[in-house]
Amino acid sequence: MEISKSEVGRVAIIGASGYGGLQLVKLISEHPFFEIASLMGERSAGQSWNDINPFLKLPLDKKITLSNVDEIVNNADYAILSLPNGLSSQLTPSLLKKGVKVLDLSADYRFRSLDKWKEVYSTEASKYQRYDYDLCEEAIYGFSEEFSNKIANSRLIACPGCYPTSALSVLIPFLKQGLIESDGIIVDAKSGTSGGGRDPKEQLLLSECSESIRPYGVIGHRHTAEIESIASQFAGHDVNLQFTPHLVPMVRGILTTAYARLRDPGLTAEDCRIVLEAYYKNKPFIDILPVGKYPATKWVRNTNKIMISIEVDKRNGRIVLMSVIDNLLKGQSGQAMQNLNIMHGIESDIGLPKITFYP
Amino acid sequence: MEISKSEVGRVAIIGASGYGGLQLVKLISEHPFFEIASLMGERSAGQSWNDINPFLKLPLDKKITLSNVDEIVNNADYAILSLPNGLSSQLTPSLLKKGVKVLDLSADYRFRSLDKWKEVYSTEASKYQRYDYDLCEEAIYGFSEEFSNKIANSRLIACPGCYPTSALSVLIPFLKQGLIESDGIIVDAKSGTSGGGRDPKEQLLLSECSESIRPYGVIGHRHTAEIESIASQFAGHDVNLQFTPHLVPMVRGILTTAYARLRDPGLTAEDCRIVLEAYYKNKPFIDILPVGKYPATKWVRNTNKIMISIEVDKRNGRIVLMSVIDNLLKGQSGQAMQNLNIMHGIESDIGLPKITFYP
Amino acid sequence: MEISKSEVGRVAIIGASGYGGLQLVKLISEHPFFEIASLMGERSAGQSWNDINPFLKLPLDKKITLSNVDEIVNNADYAILSLPNGLSSQLTPSLLKKGVKVLDLSADYRFRSLDKWKEVYSTEASKYQRYDYDLCEEAIYGFSEEFSNKIANSRLIACPGCYPTSALSVLIPFLKQGLIESDGIIVDAKSGTSGGGRDPKEQLLLSECSESIRPYGVIGHRHTAEIESIASQFAGHDVNLQFTPHLVPMVRGILTTAYARLRDPGLTAEDCRIVLEAYYKNKPFIDILPVGKYPATKWVRNTNKIMISIEVDKRNGRIVLMSVIDNLLKGQSGQAMQNLNIMHGIESDIGLPKITFYP
Amino acid sequence: MEISKSEVGRVAIIGASGYGGLQLVKLISEHPFFEIASLMGERSAGQSWNDINPFLKLPLDKKITLSNVDEIVNNADYAILSLPNGLSSQLTPSLLKKGVKVLDLSADYRFRSLDKWKEVYSTEASKYQRYDYDLCEEAIYGFSEEFSNKIANSRLIACPGCYPTSALSVLIPFLKQGLIESDGIIVDAKSGTSGGGRDPKEQLLLSECSESIRPYGVIGHRHTAEIESIASQFAGHDVNLQFTPHLVPMVRGILTTAYARLRDPGLTAEDCRIVLEAYYKNKPFIDILPVGKYPATKWVRNTNKIMISIEVDKRNGRIVLMSVIDNLLKGQSGQAMQNLNIMHGIESDIGLPKITFYP
Repeated sequence: MEISKSEVGRVAIIGASGYGGLQLVKLISEHPFFEIASLMGERSAGQSWNDINPFLKLPLDKKITLSNVDEIVNNADYAILSLPNGLSSQLTPSLLKKGVKVLDLSADYRFRSLDKWKEVYSTEASKYQRYDYDLCEEAIYGFSEEFSNKIANSRLIACPGCYPTSALSVLIPFLKQGLIESDGIIVDAKSGTSGGGRDPKEQLLLSECSESIRPYGVIGHRHTAEIESIASQFAGHDVNLQFTPHLVPMVRGILTTAYARLRDPGLTAEDCRIVLEAYYKNKPFIDILPVGKYPATKWVRNTNKIMISIEVDKRNGRIVLMSVIDNLLKGQSGQAMQNLNIMHGIESDIGLPKITFYP
Repeated sequence: MEISKSEVGRVAIIGASGYGGLQLVKLISEHPFFEIASLMGERSAGQSWNDINPFLKLPLDKKITLSNVDEIVNNADYAILSLPNGLSSQLTPSLLKKGVKVLDLSADYRFRSLDKWKEVYSTEASKYQRYDYDLCEEAIYGFSEEFSNKIANSRLIACPGCYPTSALSVLIPFLKQGLIESDGIIVDAKSGTSGGGRDPKEQLLLSECSESIRPYGVIGHRHTAEIESIASQFAGHDVNLQFTPHLVPMVRGILTTAYARLRDPGLTAEDCRIVLEAYYKNKPFIDILPVGKYPATKWVRNTNKIMISIEVDKRNGRIVLMSVIDNLLKGQSGQAMQNLNIMHGIESDIGLPKITFYP
Repeated sequence: MEISKSEVGRVAIIGASGYGGLQLVKLISEHPFFEIASLMGERSAGQSWNDINPFLKLPLDKKITLSNVDEIVNNADYAILSLPNGLSSQLTPSLLKKGVKVLDLSADYRFRSLDKWKEVYSTEASKYQRYDYDLCEEAIYGFSEEFSNKIANSRLIACPGCYPTSALSVLIPFLKQGLIESDGIIVDAKSGTSGGGRDPKEQLLLSECSESIRPYGVIGHRHTAEIESIASQFAGHDVNLQFTPHLVPMVRGILTTAYARLRDPGLTAEDCRIVLEAYYKNKPFIDILPVGKYPATKWVRNTNKIMISIEVDKRNGRIVLMSVIDNLLKGQSGQAMQNLNIMHGIESDIGLPKITFYP
Repeated sequence: MEISKSEVGRVAIIGASGYGGLQLVKLISEHPFFEIASLMGERSAGQSWNDINPFLKLPLDKKITLSNVDEIVNNADYAILSLPNGLSSQLTPSLLKKGVKVLDLSADYRFRSLDKWKEVYSTEASKYQRYDYDLCEEAIYGFSEEFSNKIANSRLIACPGCYPTSALSVLIPFLKQGLIESDGIIVDAKSGTSGGGRDPKEQLLLSECSESIRPYGVIGHRHTAEIESIASQFAGHDVNLQFTPHLVPMVRGILTTAYARLRDPGLTAEDCRIVLEAYYKNKPFIDILPVGKYPATKWVRNTNKIMISIEVDKRNGRIVLMSVIDNLLKGQSGQAMQNLNIMHGIESDIGLPKITFYP
């Protein structure tokens, strides 16, 4: 496959040394249609990439610099921002104005209403002044399987959170088709520690997390609002659900176990599987498992896949929805890459792994 | 503290080399009021205990023998059976008849109705002929905190399953007092691998489980029936709930996250905490955490504790109940020990650890 | 890149469901120059590959069959045998006779002398009658970096053991050039549990291995003989060394820490690094780290890399050699794939990962 | 057992919230002969102990205060300092002067020569002015099994480092009796992450350490000097050895694999085992395993034990010495407790666990 120089997209990665950034550097450095234009980040500014990342050496080493709009504008067609919440909104407007397309991994543009964002991310809202109401409305929520047409034509993608990606993948098909009641949905989610980032925190030490599981952010975790906002959009009315995240002693992966009540209690698990199978037809990253086969996060580790399984309790018409993703790939940087492919007009699955090295 | 010879209870442990047995050997060997009468088990019959368990040496070594009713009757006051389901029922009647009190760790006597057992444990029922309807009715369900008076006067204790212990500890107080709706309860439980036992199985290899979490036994896990049976007893009517177990990459511990709807949606988390605090007053193994503090399984590892936390979602009157236990102690052998203390007429917490070595 | 049909090598994988087999299925199914001809194995014979491996689905499903020489001969150019020691020698002669090239992952052809094999693998030798002295002499030891010319022209490759690959990678350059004393070498090696295979064994359960490290096979592990045999070949005289393997609570990876005495105690760590750098020039899978940077097994996980680091204790002229590999790739199936590339006349690194997803 | 008030030792713990401190709080709070006088520490000064340690609640809650000599002097007979290197030396002289006995967990008094300390701990030496040459000479190295008589009569105990405890336990008996050559000793040690402390550091995150093993501090780790200093003392001449620590993905435990050459190559492993058995006769915390049985760190986790195993390679007269400890107990706080028992004139093993909960 010959790739002409002009087809190659130049990508700046801002926040390159965090876990999201590391995935992007690998994915883009090995991608046939993209090249790394700049690597930026506070943590390691001034250092050579290859010196500090011997496990991810680039054929041509690059110096990491502080984030710099002009440099991005001069060198890149796309900027992927892997920054703390709030900070993205300080860079994005300037980048867009100068013609750089932005894929934002933070929550800054995930709500169509900036006021909603200010309510949910109140700490960040008090730290960063934001008036970009228009950009919040313009931004496309980057759940690739649902919004690929809009993504293809957008210049600003708000890449979804890891928990929302996992939860919405199983809720949307049933809410959109009115197959489950939107009241009383429970989303019990379990994540590996890499979701907590690379900045050292006591509660993420191996000594603390290993040999233990615990809930956190019970009631009011900020991803609740994100899941509800998109779920409501597909349900056609307000959805109010229970979301509980848990920290699991493993590095990568999210498992969502969601519970809902079927509108038609006569539906079987196999019926529901067929619904899903049809809904996600031709989606290369989504696998619907046979009834009775339940997914392990390990099955999708280091891939951009979502694996889904369904059960129905015939006794009471309740449905149990299970989905697994790699939180750093489909839950973060992999989906960003998928969106980048779509924006660039190429097949959405180029350069994205589908099969794990097991075990 | 002087302990007269006559006060010392002699205990036979049947199934000593499994994980449940190992806990019992340690607990009883260090207990001031009990001594090990016999160690029996198929796996290691004929071998010296100390030879094969250098990490748990007894001051006086013992030979492990095949299980033998006569030997138990001659040497022991109590027999603790840590055997596969079905097998216990083949030993228990003879032991009881000859005056040995039995604490059974299997499911054989957990249902008052033998027919119910035959329905839930159909594989075992087809393997072992059982007619001991009377013993099923006589047996006391060994959830120590709820049934200590009956346990004290019983000669047959059906020790609860690990998941039921964890789930019931948070459900009973609310069901009994009619504070939650009994319809629509979700029990999402997470367990370490030791719950799967010591017999080698592919899915319990470190290579398979490590770095992964997965659901199993979705809809119809046999502990569902056990939880429902006891929950119904306390609710005063049939309870039908959703129970989903998950396998977590850690050795010990169960976390239950349970969801229900408050009858009175005006109750706050603090109200509910006070209810629990009152309900479990003077129970040395139960800790109710302050609202906003969520338990990690590590906090109770190697102890006989249950730690509980509650949240209420004010938006919709839903309650989230969290409890953690060590699946091999409070979830199995520790609770058996607690029951043994009660049967022996001594304080229920003697010889049972309450504080973990953290981390 | 256009690949003509005639250039595609057809590969039969015997022992496909073990951990070695799983790597091969993934590598070959994604490889531009090879295709899977047959999947054979006892464990899952008769089953559909995709049914039992939802995490590694083939675009065209295949039925797993019992191993069958005729079928291999009819369909395959190459056979990769991932079988227990001894069993390979029962298939290999027939396959070779009928023109199928063999890459054997077992130890059966790793010694030039069959008698030596019978001595080291005495249990297997008593179980399987072997007279294939000629094949033992003919077989090429598949340490790709050292023997690529011979591998290219061979029809029988004895792929090295995981520990030997890791240990020899650091010992050979120094032994061959006479830079270290061949007496008193210590090889202290640490491996993940996948090295113990997929057959369930108590000591490989997560409940047993997790939160623990232990030595095993101290003195007399069978890889000692393999390491010594190759090391002697490069040293030009008999090498007798200390090898101690350890089991680490992780799935993949081997770290070797080797100790030796420099012949010239004046050499610095940097001198030795330069020696290695020169020795492994243009070897795409070998990285020599800067002095003072020590490799983690995680840096090479899921890759075919070897990362090496060296230190010298100036006080006493001792050298510390460290190397890390992924035991299932460079330590097993990845190296087999590398050898297959070489035998097929294509670049040795095609279809083999060099960069991990970190963390 | 009646314990008169006057026999109860009052202990101040300085640095209570670190991992060493947590062990001490548990051990002392459950000890029949000691009580906690004060809990001090910077990290959590001003907070209630029970609020921040729900997993280690004291019957009588205590406020954590900044470290304060006067308060210690008024309330305590003993002070255990679990502080960063260098800081201990700023408190110890005042405490001793006012009659408080000190057990120091840092390295500050582990060398008889302050100048040696300044050389090895040069960073700390440049930060803290020290002139306490006399105290360095006075302090007793708290390897309980070797120095119990001196410990009994001392007012200042320098508790050994975790690696030195593990390494010296196997080296001392052989060096003291001249059974091994003191030249060419290799100590390859493997530790869990809790040895790195509770302060959050990137390299100790679960995301970084899990599924990985790596060497660190190769050549020149500061415990090298400590091991050599004590080993030399027992050998009767300077010992210069190779020490390499490794980080293992587990919380607790150290395994030492040490290599040496027997002076008399005719000695068998069984001979050497008998030597050790005799040497450690009547030491309640030391277990010598039968030849051929190798210890796992899990066997001693949460105990104060040392388990030792030996092999001899008959081919070359090399000895392989293996020992395991819990790095936070026998490797740190457990040994401090053992020394405290000795100083207090009671049995050395009171209040110290000898048997783990397996698995």
